[in-house]
Amino acid sequence: MTVRFLALYETPADPEAFDRRYREAHIPLGRQLPGLRRYAVGRDVAAVRGGAPYYLVAELEWDTMDELRAAFASPEGRATAADAARLQELTPVRSMIFTVDDSVM
Amino acid sequence: MTVRFLALYETPADPEAFDRRYREAHIPLGRQLPGLRRYAVGRDVAAVRGGAPYYLVAELEWDTMDELRAAFASPEGRATAADAARLQELTPVRSMIFTVDDSVM
Repeated sequence: MTVRFLALYETPADPEAFDRRYREAHIPLGRQLPGLRRYAVGRDVAAVRGGAPYYLVAELEWDTMDELRAAFASPEGRATAADAARLQELTPVRSMIFTVDDSVM
Repeated sequence: MTVRFLALYETPADPEAFDRRYREAHIPLGRQLPGLRRYAVGRDVAAVRGGAPYYLVAELEWDTMDELRAAFASPEGRATAADAARLQELTPVRSMIFTVDDSVM
């Protein structure tokens, strides 16, 4: 059982500017989050159902919800959140946290 | 590098009916997909940014895009897709496939 932060970015008006900002500013901040176990990015997203796919899917993983919450409350977490707020000026994002139930299979 | 199918379900009008249908019909079909490496479900989703969170996040993983496409085209894939279409009568879904880039961290 792990916990995950999932950020879903809509296609930006200027994908190149978004990619550069995400790569050069956001990833380096996110990687410093305390207790982070995994940071993966989904690219080349293709829709299956429900209309346009998201442009970028970011997944960050922690061992427990307490560790995730501690990471978000840390100075590194606040810096990453401030940068996420600036990224929203380039494209809308829908982000959430949840518990991953691996018992399905 | 793995590939993933991600299905994001909005909150259903009748969560109990949706949960039952998902658990009793959809999961048993999805688990039979050829080559499937992982099927995990995110529950108790809490929003961070961008408004309401999704109600349920489903992640299915394959080793390669070719294997994912073969699974979708198989009889098991067609049965799962038909059931997904029926699930959409209970709540909207936005689903997509993408390559997971783990090189970020």
